[in-house]
Amino acid sequence: MNYQDAFRTALDRVRQEGRYRVFADLKRHRGEFPRATWTQADGSQSDVIVWCSNDYLGQGQNPVVLDAMHQAIEEAGAGSGGTRNISGTTHYHVELEAELADLHGKEAALLFTSGYVSNEASLSTLYKILPGLIIFSDALNHNSMISGIRAGRGPRHVYRHNDLAHLEELLAAADPAAPKLIAFESVYSMDGDIADIAGTIALAKKYNALTYIDEVHAVGMYGPRGAGVAERDGVMAEIDIIEGTLGKAFGVMGGYIAADAVIVDAIRSYADGFIFTTSLPPALAAGAVASIRYLKDHNEVREAHQERAATLKALMRKAGLPVMPSVSHIVPVEVGDPVHCKLISDILLSDYGIYVQPINYPTVPRGTERLRFTPSPAHTDEMMGDLVKALENLWTRCNIKRVGGVAA
Amino acid sequence: MNYQDAFRTALDRVRQEGRYRVFADLKRHRGEFPRATWTQADGSQSDVIVWCSNDYLGQGQNPVVLDAMHQAIEEAGAGSGGTRNISGTTHYHVELEAELADLHGKEAALLFTSGYVSNEASLSTLYKILPGLIIFSDALNHNSMISGIRAGRGPRHVYRHNDLAHLEELLAAADPAAPKLIAFESVYSMDGDIADIAGTIALAKKYNALTYIDEVHAVGMYGPRGAGVAERDGVMAEIDIIEGTLGKAFGVMGGYIAADAVIVDAIRSYADGFIFTTSLPPALAAGAVASIRYLKDHNEVREAHQERAATLKALMRKAGLPVMPSVSHIVPVEVGDPVHCKLISDILLSDYGIYVQPINYPTVPRGTERLRFTPSPAHTDEMMGDLVKALENLWTRCNIKRVGGVAA
Repeated sequence: MNYQDAFRTALDRVRQEGRYRVFADLKRHRGEFPRATWTQADGSQSDVIVWCSNDYLGQGQNPVVLDAMHQAIEEAGAGSGGTRNISGTTHYHVELEAELADLHGKEAALLFTSGYVSNEASLSTLYKILPGLIIFSDALNHNSMISGIRAGRGPRHVYRHNDLAHLEELLAAADPAAPKLIAFESVYSMDGDIADIAGTIALAKKYNALTYIDEVHAVGMYGPRGAGVAERDGVMAEIDIIEGTLGKAFGVMGGYIAADAVIVDAIRSYADGFIFTTSLPPALAAGAVASIRYLKDHNEVREAHQERAATLKALMRKAGLPVMPSVSHIVPVEVGDPVHCKLISDILLSDYGIYVQPINYPTVPRGTERLRFTPSPAHTDEMMGDLVKALENLWTRCNIKRVGGVAA
Repeated sequence: MNYQDAFRTALDRVRQEGRYRVFADLKRHRGEFPRATWTQADGSQSDVIVWCSNDYLGQGQNPVVLDAMHQAIEEAGAGSGGTRNISGTTHYHVELEAELADLHGKEAALLFTSGYVSNEASLSTLYKILPGLIIFSDALNHNSMISGIRAGRGPRHVYRHNDLAHLEELLAAADPAAPKLIAFESVYSMDGDIADIAGTIALAKKYNALTYIDEVHAVGMYGPRGAGVAERDGVMAEIDIIEGTLGKAFGVMGGYIAADAVIVDAIRSYADGFIFTTSLPPALAAGAVASIRYLKDHNEVREAHQERAATLKALMRKAGLPVMPSVSHIVPVEVGDPVHCKLISDILLSDYGIYVQPINYPTVPRGTERLRFTPSPAHTDEMMGDLVKALENLWTRCNIKRVGGVAA
């Protein structure tokens, strides 16, 4: 057994599949988002526009958020110093959980160190809490949800993406007496499509199932107070468990669930991934509280965000670029080939100062390789013009199909 | 199926087992650690001394750390805005990984959002990278390691805690051609005992196994530059994978592994829990770099820490309190009964302003319930005197056995 060889073989496999990742070393500059400095391996630096950040609203540079973080550091120091149970529950955590419960109109909320952990820990733990639980999971659910469902090792059924007829088929075929949970997302981040939340709730009621919605690509951005698509659609109260993140539109880091007090308390008491880990630093909790409060009151940020996304889509369509049929703030442009997708991304970065990651298999199905743009309120008309011009050049250079409208 | 009832039943089970946790709402005050303000459910507040923090060295209030965090917030804002691959690798992350590799004398290091995630993601992923891998795991390994090993679903053998004869038995019985990994900790945090690292390495060499050591309760605190017990023992170079945390002695948050470049690169490329999650905020990375650098150069902090722990143990032994045989900075005092353990902890908090969590089953075996003290360089002689006096009173009041020396 030669271990070095074995690790090398594993890496070769990734390279052969075209999945080897080279991380771009970026330094974002407060007050100048989406501008950043890109440092290459040889130490040379250049300015870039970031077009693929999940800091969707630029809250990562909102002075209200930064001030709250500075203040918490001054008051309470750096880390929390412990797990939630062993000295790591600070007043900032208590406040943030209350704020999150209020945001979603639920009795309680529970903080995790990340959105990934909140999904993984909550879903795996629900199997422990509800013996015999069957989870019905949308086929395009995020890796963190799949990971939690797998770790729970209970029965699970995967329904075709956003296909409620298929979901109903599976629900109807299951033991009526068994506890059931439907796990799905609101905004699917690689396509930008949105689930039929009301329809899913109706099925859940018909078959006495719980609902678990991942709103990580929606919180802060949808609904009159930024609680997500379920709020926008007026059905938030009917969702049993809402999962969200503090690391995307809220601009900080961390994940959470919001639900009835008894549900939150049970997950709090059983979830290893919650219990046995150091809690978030007070400064992150304080920054998140400030960000959530700000976005509750500033619907104009959401309006600007939607306007920017609509404008970019329109500009791209006008240029014949194959914008995929997203109904959200996410702007995916299909390339349809992994090599071209990576190549275009590389040239955009090196020659045009435009940073966008290629999205290839297995993140998306083969043949639908794409560039995924996330315009924020800080992306100007000029930046959009430059982007579309660069893409037009590269589309011609790479001889990629263009369309009159939406990609086929 | 009544879901509310099911969640209530699950909670009742926790309550019946005496494991229902009530988190103490604390606010630590920068510059005054280990002092904090405790807020009760009714809103009343009082001052307490925190005796169970894992901010072992008080780095959470070191101005060097806080300044670095402030500066990073000013420069780069709040969150990182993405996964490591999609715009979330900032220059701070690159710097921190280089710093960690240097700390442990390894070619490379990889950051995770927490120590929990670093163990869970790395260990589960090693099964994917090394087909047929058998993991040999110490019986007292942390929940995060167990969780990772279970999630990997490969063959595993649990050896009796720190029992190298048992480990050898299991290694000798396994297929000589199969890839093997021994997973263990250096400092076990509930007892304060330390593994025979050199002995474990010798077995690993004899049976061609990799070694994976969790040094979360040691980094920053042991070794001339604070790289942990493996550094102290002069065997760090012979360990294949070192896992550590930024959330305990380094005073911030986050986890990592350090190893050969090819190992780090393989885990980086395969670990879902690393790939699909938002990276740490730049300010946490910057704070961690500052903390690591500071502790590399300030061995006197480690000396003060060890002196404080030795002094507290001596004072307790002199008072006939059953200090358990810890050889580290952790000071566990055996109560031996879950009800007394919880009661003493409650009275210490309410009547004496002393905050220490009870450690009951299943964290420790039944009959060994304990209070676990973690004196830091900031805990004064006076605080120790007050603590020992309070414990003496309560030991008498609860009629708990006292001993001339170490507990039987």
